Amino acid sequence: MALIVKKFGGSSVATPEKIFHIVDRVLKHKKKDDQIVIVVSAMGDTTDDLVALAKKVTSHPYGREMDRLLSTGEQVSIALMAMAFTEKGHPAVSMTGPQAGVESSDAFGKGRILDVKPERIFKALEEGNIVIVAGFQGITDTGDVTTLGRGGSDTTAVALAGAMKADVCEIFTDVDGVYSTDPRVTDRAQKLKEITYGEMLEMARLGAGVMQPRAVEMGSRYGVPIHVRSTFTENPGTIIREDYTMESNQHTITGVADDTNVAKVALVGVENKPGVAHTIFQALADATVDVDMIVQSIRTTDDERTDIVFTISRDDVVLAKETLDKLRQTVDMECVVINEDMAKVSIVGAGMLGQPGVAAQMFGILSEEGINLEIISTSEISISCLIAENRVKDAVKAIHDKLCLDGRN
Amino acid sequence: MALIVKKFGGSSVATPEKIFHIVDRVLKHKKKDDQIVIVVSAMGDTTDDLVALAKKVTSHPYGREMDRLLSTGEQVSIALMAMAFTEKGHPAVSMTGPQAGVESSDAFGKGRILDVKPERIFKALEEGNIVIVAGFQGITDTGDVTTLGRGGSDTTAVALAGAMKADVCEIFTDVDGVYSTDPRVTDRAQKLKEITYGEMLEMARLGAGVMQPRAVEMGSRYGVPIHVRSTFTENPGTIIREDYTMESNQHTITGVADDTNVAKVALVGVENKPGVAHTIFQALADATVDVDMIVQSIRTTDDERTDIVFTISRDDVVLAKETLDKLRQTVDMECVVINEDMAKVSIVGAGMLGQPGVAAQMFGILSEEGINLEIISTSEISISCLIAENRVKDAVKAIHDKLCLDGRN
Repeated sequence: MALIVKKFGGSSVATPEKIFHIVDRVLKHKKKDDQIVIVVSAMGDTTDDLVALAKKVTSHPYGREMDRLLSTGEQVSIALMAMAFTEKGHPAVSMTGPQAGVESSDAFGKGRILDVKPERIFKALEEGNIVIVAGFQGITDTGDVTTLGRGGSDTTAVALAGAMKADVCEIFTDVDGVYSTDPRVTDRAQKLKEITYGEMLEMARLGAGVMQPRAVEMGSRYGVPIHVRSTFTENPGTIIREDYTMESNQHTITGVADDTNVAKVALVGVENKPGVAHTIFQALADATVDVDMIVQSIRTTDDERTDIVFTISRDDVVLAKETLDKLRQTVDMECVVINEDMAKVSIVGAGMLGQPGVAAQMFGILSEEGINLEIISTSEISISCLIAENRVKDAVKAIHDKLCLDGRN
Repeated sequence: MALIVKKFGGSSVATPEKIFHIVDRVLKHKKKDDQIVIVVSAMGDTTDDLVALAKKVTSHPYGREMDRLLSTGEQVSIALMAMAFTEKGHPAVSMTGPQAGVESSDAFGKGRILDVKPERIFKALEEGNIVIVAGFQGITDTGDVTTLGRGGSDTTAVALAGAMKADVCEIFTDVDGVYSTDPRVTDRAQKLKEITYGEMLEMARLGAGVMQPRAVEMGSRYGVPIHVRSTFTENPGTIIREDYTMESNQHTITGVADDTNVAKVALVGVENKPGVAHTIFQALADATVDVDMIVQSIRTTDDERTDIVFTISRDDVVLAKETLDKLRQTVDMECVVINEDMAKVSIVGAGMLGQPGVAAQMFGILSEEGINLEIISTSEISISCLIAENRVKDAVKAIHDKLCLDGRN
């Protein structure tokens, strides 16, 4: 007997036929006493369609009402999937995020899961049901639905698996595992058999679309093994776990990630006095704008003024603009320039620790390609560079093929 | 200052443009201290589209999962309308049926409102908001959403108005009031200035689509004046209240209604023993099939067997078939014949009391038209006949023009 949480994304449930495909597959592999919880996203392009609809009505497509609107997509897919299981003869019940006990913060549009109380799920499982849970949503302490932001359904699945002490959380996706880089960029990309939470977290944070960082972090915190695998084939995918098993080779560099959902914000000629940076980034944090890379440069010719450059998600550009406009009433700056044609390319690998030459190698490769670096940032197991978006594929291919394949082929 | 509940149906909120039309109209008429609660249905054909989607997945498109699916339609429209008010500069919040305190029975697909606890609405109104509530849905004591069946949004609006002691409940619709009969059937149909709850209840129960019987009943119970009026014009419509005001003339017959959502079920050759009718109708009631007209006839040549004929809504045909199939394991009958080409035509009027000739006049008119009566049923203020569906318009026109216009033109 195993307790398994399975998550299917929007493209896997886009049509009734695809829903039945999943139902058949789940029933085929389910052992008699297995307990199965399935987390699903909204069907196909539903979420995008709802966003487009909202934009016809409001110039502020976020907040409480937006979350109410978006959360309907998953309610449709869980109801249909529960009906499909019942139609195939297996009892099933659907639960919204709130019904599944997913409690979230009230940061609408990017709620964070604060707690999961899965009692109702356990009860339904004990009654013999397969339980279908709406991903991407939780309930605040005032009873409102919040959506959990990008990749929220992955986070829901891993959080449930953690709270329920599931044996494994399977993330079904349209790729068949985690690759050393995007296989569409270079045909030399390799599927990884295993990857650590830490490495996956960096890969995800830096743009590898296959898993969201928050979900990986949640898996790490609760020690839930995550199996990233294909909806369309039955091949094993990539296991994300705490440590490599002995048989797995660890490489210096696990993979190359890129992220084009990046906007560069330059605050030019900001008054240079103590506390200014704190004021600016606190205001952005209060507006729930996530800031990524930050550079502050002191002008050599004018030490009264400084330039502050940082990156944010393109989704947050409107919010950031509004926040900065308000801020300019109290903080003096010459101008704000927002640039949406940037991208970030990163290398990740726990094996980079203690190998100081890797950063230099990466910069050298980019230089050979004639690619300019705007910002560089590093963590213990990653190095990221902000470059022009139109060069990102060249950058990924060059770095991957020259660095990642060391000692593998 | 007035507390007003306004209800807008699906066709009134079918597009973002129509939503803004409503928003503009509400804001134009709102006095400074007025408190406004708006109940909305799902946009346009959303509910039909969701039903069609469910039918691709299940052969049993009803129950808990179906209600979950259908309840999403209203969540979309309330979110968009709240956004639209905010966009036009007036604070607004949306609430689902559960958030608005609408508690319902667990008869999925046809939940009944058991109680309304509008504290959260009052709080939001006091904070200066217009409150937008999802019609057609409530929450059971186990925390599941139930839909309230046909016309459920009208019922939601009147129930809220009753629980909140609103000054009036305005039902906006695509006709400009209650007519003596369907104006599409005869151009001599007249708009009624006023009608009593009792008369409206019969009109609605008997098929006048403009208001649902349950909503009228709720209005009667709580004494809420209901104003049925047009979404598209600003003319006054029809007021439904307890008694006529002095200036209004009361006629013998208020109106003629017809209902084509009728199926005739004939149980042929049922064993004729005590308790059989009870067994049959209890089983149908347990399956939540509403039975309307009932006739039982004893065969003159075979008193071992009886024929039982009754009518149900066409929506319940699948459910009734399943129930009767199961029942035939215990109750002996020769065959079940279900006929979906029937319709019901009815006359309604409090003034019929003590005017025994009216029924005879109605039968006479139908006879002149060559229309056969299959079942007749009467109440204190109505008479209904089951006839062939393809003759229903002729019947309504003939009865209306010959009976209703007495003393009016």
